[in-house]
Amino acid sequence: MVKYVYNFSEGDKDMKDLLGGKGANLAEMTKLGLPVPPGFTISTDACREYLKRGEVPAELATEVTKNLRKVEDEIGRRLGEPTGPLLMSVRSGAKFSMPGMMETVLNIGLNDQSVVGLAEFASDERFAWDSYRRLIQMFGKTVMHIEGDGFSDALDKLKEDRGVHYDHELSAEDLKGLVATFKEIFKAETGRDFPQDPREQLDMGIEAVFQSWNTERAKIYRRRERISESLGTAVNVQTMVFGNMGETSGTGVCFTRDPSTGHSGVYGDYLMNAQGEDVVAGIRNTEPLSTLGDHDPKSYQELLGIMRKLETHYQDLCDIEFTIERGKLWMLQTRVGKRTAAAAFRVATQLVDEKLITMDEALTRVTGAQLTQLMFPQFDDKAPKELLTRAMAASPGAAVGEIVFNNDDAEAAARAGRKCILVRRETNPEDLPGMVAAEGILTARGGKTSHAAVVARGMGKTCICGAEALRVDAEEKTLAVGDRILKAGDIIAIDGTTGEVFAGDVPVVDSVVTTYLAHGLEAGLEAAGADEQMADLVNSVHRLLTHADAVRTMKVRANADTPEDSERAIEFGAEGIGLCRTEHMFLGDRRVLIERVILAEEGSADRQAGFDALEELQKGDFLQMLRVLDAKPMTVRLIDPPLHEFLPDLTSLEVKVAVAKAVEGKADPADEKMLEAVRRMHESNPMLGLRGVRLGIYLPGLFDLQIRALTQAAAELKKEGLDPRPEIMVPLVGSIRELAIIRHNAEQIIAEEAAKAGVELDIHVGCMIELPRAAMTAEDLAQEADFFSFGTNDLTQTVWGFSRDDVEGVFIPKYIEEAVFGVSPFETIDQHGVGRVVREGVERARSTKPDIKLGVCGEHGGDPESIHFFHEVGLNYVSCSPFRVPIARLEAGRAAVLAD
Amino acid sequence: MVKYVYNFSEGDKDMKDLLGGKGANLAEMTKLGLPVPPGFTISTDACREYLKRGEVPAELATEVTKNLRKVEDEIGRRLGEPTGPLLMSVRSGAKFSMPGMMETVLNIGLNDQSVVGLAEFASDERFAWDSYRRLIQMFGKTVMHIEGDGFSDALDKLKEDRGVHYDHELSAEDLKGLVATFKEIFKAETGRDFPQDPREQLDMGIEAVFQSWNTERAKIYRRRERISESLGTAVNVQTMVFGNMGETSGTGVCFTRDPSTGHSGVYGDYLMNAQGEDVVAGIRNTEPLSTLGDHDPKSYQELLGIMRKLETHYQDLCDIEFTIERGKLWMLQTRVGKRTAAAAFRVATQLVDEKLITMDEALTRVTGAQLTQLMFPQFDDKAPKELLTRAMAASPGAAVGEIVFNNDDAEAAARAGRKCILVRRETNPEDLPGMVAAEGILTARGGKTSHAAVVARGMGKTCICGAEALRVDAEEKTLAVGDRILKAGDIIAIDGTTGEVFAGDVPVVDSVVTTYLAHGLEAGLEAAGADEQMADLVNSVHRLLTHADAVRTMKVRANADTPEDSERAIEFGAEGIGLCRTEHMFLGDRRVLIERVILAEEGSADRQAGFDALEELQKGDFLQMLRVLDAKPMTVRLIDPPLHEFLPDLTSLEVKVAVAKAVEGKADPADEKMLEAVRRMHESNPMLGLRGVRLGIYLPGLFDLQIRALTQAAAELKKEGLDPRPEIMVPLVGSIRELAIIRHNAEQIIAEEAAKAGVELDIHVGCMIELPRAAMTAEDLAQEADFFSFGTNDLTQTVWGFSRDDVEGVFIPKYIEEAVFGVSPFETIDQHGVGRVVREGVERARSTKPDIKLGVCGEHGGDPESIHFFHEVGLNYVSCSPFRVPIARLEAGRAAVLAD
Repeated sequence: MVKYVYNFSEGDKDMKDLLGGKGANLAEMTKLGLPVPPGFTISTDACREYLKRGEVPAELATEVTKNLRKVEDEIGRRLGEPTGPLLMSVRSGAKFSMPGMMETVLNIGLNDQSVVGLAEFASDERFAWDSYRRLIQMFGKTVMHIEGDGFSDALDKLKEDRGVHYDHELSAEDLKGLVATFKEIFKAETGRDFPQDPREQLDMGIEAVFQSWNTERAKIYRRRERISESLGTAVNVQTMVFGNMGETSGTGVCFTRDPSTGHSGVYGDYLMNAQGEDVVAGIRNTEPLSTLGDHDPKSYQELLGIMRKLETHYQDLCDIEFTIERGKLWMLQTRVGKRTAAAAFRVATQLVDEKLITMDEALTRVTGAQLTQLMFPQFDDKAPKELLTRAMAASPGAAVGEIVFNNDDAEAAARAGRKCILVRRETNPEDLPGMVAAEGILTARGGKTSHAAVVARGMGKTCICGAEALRVDAEEKTLAVGDRILKAGDIIAIDGTTGEVFAGDVPVVDSVVTTYLAHGLEAGLEAAGADEQMADLVNSVHRLLTHADAVRTMKVRANADTPEDSERAIEFGAEGIGLCRTEHMFLGDRRVLIERVILAEEGSADRQAGFDALEELQKGDFLQMLRVLDAKPMTVRLIDPPLHEFLPDLTSLEVKVAVAKAVEGKADPADEKMLEAVRRMHESNPMLGLRGVRLGIYLPGLFDLQIRALTQAAAELKKEGLDPRPEIMVPLVGSIRELAIIRHNAEQIIAEEAAKAGVELDIHVGCMIELPRAAMTAEDLAQEADFFSFGTNDLTQTVWGFSRDDVEGVFIPKYIEEAVFGVSPFETIDQHGVGRVVREGVERARSTKPDIKLGVCGEHGGDPESIHFFHEVGLNYVSCSPFRVPIARLEAGRAAVLAD
Repeated sequence: MVKYVYNFSEGDKDMKDLLGGKGANLAEMTKLGLPVPPGFTISTDACREYLKRGEVPAELATEVTKNLRKVEDEIGRRLGEPTGPLLMSVRSGAKFSMPGMMETVLNIGLNDQSVVGLAEFASDERFAWDSYRRLIQMFGKTVMHIEGDGFSDALDKLKEDRGVHYDHELSAEDLKGLVATFKEIFKAETGRDFPQDPREQLDMGIEAVFQSWNTERAKIYRRRERISESLGTAVNVQTMVFGNMGETSGTGVCFTRDPSTGHSGVYGDYLMNAQGEDVVAGIRNTEPLSTLGDHDPKSYQELLGIMRKLETHYQDLCDIEFTIERGKLWMLQTRVGKRTAAAAFRVATQLVDEKLITMDEALTRVTGAQLTQLMFPQFDDKAPKELLTRAMAASPGAAVGEIVFNNDDAEAAARAGRKCILVRRETNPEDLPGMVAAEGILTARGGKTSHAAVVARGMGKTCICGAEALRVDAEEKTLAVGDRILKAGDIIAIDGTTGEVFAGDVPVVDSVVTTYLAHGLEAGLEAAGADEQMADLVNSVHRLLTHADAVRTMKVRANADTPEDSERAIEFGAEGIGLCRTEHMFLGDRRVLIERVILAEEGSADRQAGFDALEELQKGDFLQMLRVLDAKPMTVRLIDPPLHEFLPDLTSLEVKVAVAKAVEGKADPADEKMLEAVRRMHESNPMLGLRGVRLGIYLPGLFDLQIRALTQAAAELKKEGLDPRPEIMVPLVGSIRELAIIRHNAEQIIAEEAAKAGVELDIHVGCMIELPRAAMTAEDLAQEADFFSFGTNDLTQTVWGFSRDDVEGVFIPKYIEEAVFGVSPFETIDQHGVGRVVREGVERARSTKPDIKLGVCGEHGGDPESIHFFHEVGLNYVSCSPFRVPIARLEAGRAAVLAD
């Protein structure tokens, strides 16, 4: 027989699927013998059954009765009985927290009789009638779906009539009258009287919570947070306790350690003679937890004991809600507490030092995202700052600049070399140029998945969203907060990590964590100086990162095209270069050479002269890079983009020539010749055109010069006694024959150059897997490849059939809003689609060559969630931008621990 | 123990893997008791073993000895013995024919002694010494790899010295001298004497054939023809027989039916006192086979009997080579004979009528490619024609037009409405504009996979390639054949089915087969008129196509966007429309409406007005289409291209505005406004941009108007009593949520309109599978789809990561040359890559919804090889252009028969 209802004494913290997060933790505390107000949880099974049938399963009523009687017997009072009634709360509680999305009904059990009983029991008539009017209001709105402001209008009118300002200034008599008014509103709106039967109130409350699973806002929330529709919510029915029964009552929130700094020792807030909702509403200021020690030492000591017990039990920092009702301490909720990035690292190592957890476990308590936050420069703590407002921290960083309100001003500022912050009510695709030009973006509307947020994260720009306190007038070019008015050109500073907006310039300081990562422990500690907290943080990061390095199975390489980037990458702990793009070596002064190659005829002396000059220059580049890398591997990708990208833009040149002809009757012959070439080479979809290996096959000699330059550089260094380890990577391969052609050429060149130099060279040849066909036929390609590197940027583009340039700022935010994506597939790998292609590629490759070296060099290589996926599918390494190397090291370590 | 050698009496025709095609058929004839010169076949196993080891397996020598002795005993003579020597031929013979790619050595067994014996035995000294000099020459070239023209120079010099013109004018004494000269050349080139040991000659000949498997030209041929490298060749060692031993000897080629017309009754050529190579060399004209009847009635009757026996045995038209040596008939080779398209259809039904094969078998004897040939208009057989030359039939059709030699002339002719034929020595990507403008393409160089051939087939243009007799002078604009010189502007006619090039205009007649297909059997027979052969052809096609319809499991639909195309498709036998593209309905006069929609603001009255006008027009389109279709399904694809495709081109508009500003100081404000919109909407890769379902989600109302127009049209026709069956197809879907959003909208609109009209409408909603992600997550999409249609054009583009526009004329020919493709993946589906994605999509879709209707509407839907693949993976229908519907019907029937 199915069981729908669990007394708190029957569950535990691991039953979140069935009891939801809140219910499971209430059960856990009950099991630990802590003072939890008695109650029971109706399981998610019951909710799912209700949603399926469209009605409450009959068995549920009987189970509720049994459990309710048990609670009544335990307390010794009955639900809603006329004297000393038992009151109950009914709250939702899903597996994953969905704050504010579903319904709650408090004070169930009050009716025209029991309100009198409650007044006597609590010796507080005002309290009883206020509770009753709250029940009618909450029940009317959440259970009976009464819309509009009828209840609050009536309350406001009463206060006006009485000439008072606050609710608590109303008398018991006032509230009695208000209850009568509320009951009239209830009847008028619903066509029935407010239910006097306590059990009917309870049953209707439970059903209302079930229904609230399927409200539109809950559905939208789940889509965005990628929470499955099929989970359903549990319902917690719990005895009410009151922190507002006088001076010996109160309520508070506490943490077993400081969640903000990670400082050890308890931390919390307390409010005497108040309910939890008063704390949330912020009507009165809370006091530090320690005041409870002065006020009610017994409860305080009991609470400290419970906190220690909970932390020992959960082996982590706990976040706790409690209420004291007339000197009796009750635990209302606990969970593992949220914390700042710095706190996460410090707490994790503290717990290790206290021998509560192992280093492996400690690794699971910190994340790459937290490490990222710690690496950004931050506003100087000590500098004076004028806080304007605080809003959604949408993309981290600290940005300072003059206020601009539109694209033109942003671009003008950027051109003039002035930093600016783009301020908009909200952004849309037309604001892209301004976003590109600005240091940071600040919007008054929209959340973490708004256009501004998604695009800014994609660009790596600092961004704060949904700063509702701001009044943005783009026409007048003003930005107002309260009475404070700023104009275009005024300086503001935004902190994308905390969501704080400051007026005026704020000095930015480097992160001590970044100093440590770049220059080692000693340098980090020196930078921390006398700040113990900072020094502790540096030590914590060092210990956790060192442990991650020890346990991870994936290597971490960097994407770097210059000796400077390579040096930085190695400082940050990169074990090699996973992607050295060579097209960057054709830019600048050298562009003229590649132009010459393009314009010359195939087989002509002019083309060969261009090739020769490029070969010499590339050899120089490779010599520098390989010297930096020495015994570390360096994967060189042969030139990838279509050649016309090195020529002038078609439209500009057409305009130039046409205007010259119209005005002067003729155009510069050099321009005309160039135009002809540009027209001939124009492609309608360059991403899908003549590039990568296609170009290598189509234009004989191009890849050869690169291979020769690399081989000669390696040979030269080998003779010097260094240990160069270049690897040749062929881009955009789709079929084995393409790879075979290039590999064959490469092997010949390597053999020739090795013989010429009299050294042995073992240069691996492999390819990118960035086309679906490459992954789908990887068992073939593996025959000709020593390694594969998944190019997940291009793979995302081809698997989805969209080009990042064209869609990222345009419809990716729209798609996130419409819940097609939870996150941009360019930020985190789309495991369900692109990931399947990667997985298939890995399996096929290993089926031919079990030992083939497999890596990834798309931007996903530095994304925490993606790194876990790459670990799971069995890649040998990830390669990412130098700055992300420490994050990848940490996450690769975490992945290894978590996968076990 | 492994067996390497098979006497002809040991094999049969099904052993092609082991014995090669020639060897298997020789064995089959031997088994049938036909007079085959004795011999044996060395298996492909031996070749593979040789290629692996790099030397002839020792066991092979002993097996050759045993088999050679058996042949010697059977004949009663010994290989190369001094008197009456046995001579042997050594020929390659792979599983798949590779004509001219590998080596042959004839007359093995001749040496300084046996040549005298042969002279006596044959009573012909001249013949014996000529055979000996041929052996030395052939052996020197093919076995010893002697390069250069030493042998033929010596022969030419001898003829010059003797003052004669032909080889046969040389005397026996002359030839004796020539043998001495050849032996000197042999020694000088190889450093050794010509081997006198017959067995050494044989062993070296066998090894040379093995080696010839791996010559560069053989490898290239195999890559192009997609023949596996690992097969290896068999070697046939056979007793030589001589058709050149006087008047009672001769040689011939015959067919059991006419391979050109399909006329029943034997057909062939005979040449008295000649060897097969003389027939091939074309030195003398052959006579009809029947002359053999007059000359040697016994052999003739025996041959007729054998032909009947072979046809009965092979149950098909056979192609036979025979030799008569001094009145004794020998069978040298047989195989199922190649035939013209018309012959294929006629012979297939003849064989059915003769009860030699079933209709199912008959279907396997004809192909869609043959039916395609029969459907093209043809040059009038009866019209006088001046044949210039005959070359490679690279792309079928009959094209007439003036000669042009470059793009400019081709485009000028096309603009003036004159038809032209582009004539080039060879084509390359720069000739694309000319190819587009021309009716047909004629090149002097290149084969079936040359740039011209590949691109022409892709465009559906008539093309003849490799017409080496032509001298093309593009500078002078002349085209010469022998003495005949044509100039630019002269008319030529090219037949892409036969490869014939004619000077002057040739009238084109419609195909009777097409008349039949479009208008039925009666009309076809009427068009054939008194031509019995044509009438027979029409009947044959009708019977085979009717049978194909009866046995096929896949439906055939057509891609059609207009009522006219739909009518044509239904005439050709389409069972519905599989793809009706709606963007075509926005062109012409209506472009202004879509411009209005694009330029208007979201939610504005102007935009709505544009939508309303478009809705009305689309409704009209759909009414017409649905009326034509009536009870047949019609799949309507919602608008797919990016909207900026409806706006003016960016570059032209930039030039227009810039020039106006430069010249007149200002531009037309309307142009400026449009330019702003065009700039805003410009995409760097439009194929991967805001199109398809993305556009539908991004621009609310656009898809809705189309769905509403279609639904209203269907409702209206339903009320008229018709049976409209529209289906809504969403393009470019990559994720379930995209489809769910559109489906949800569609269902609402359908319900509204059905209620309004008071009819029931059951309109299916499905989507294209044209992105890898759609196929990889088809088990999700299937939850929201009633059907899928694989868009294999786009799928090919995204799986390979190339855009057809950008690569087809540019590097696909290069890739075919480099053997990356065997055929363009846009012509025939790339089964190994794209096909895997399709197969995965099918399997995933059926895993969720076993009955989901699956089809294909890419151009591959009309390609024979691809159709077989689609049958194999289990699609329910293919949809192709109207003209290809009959081909698809035939091939779908063949696929059903062949798959059993």
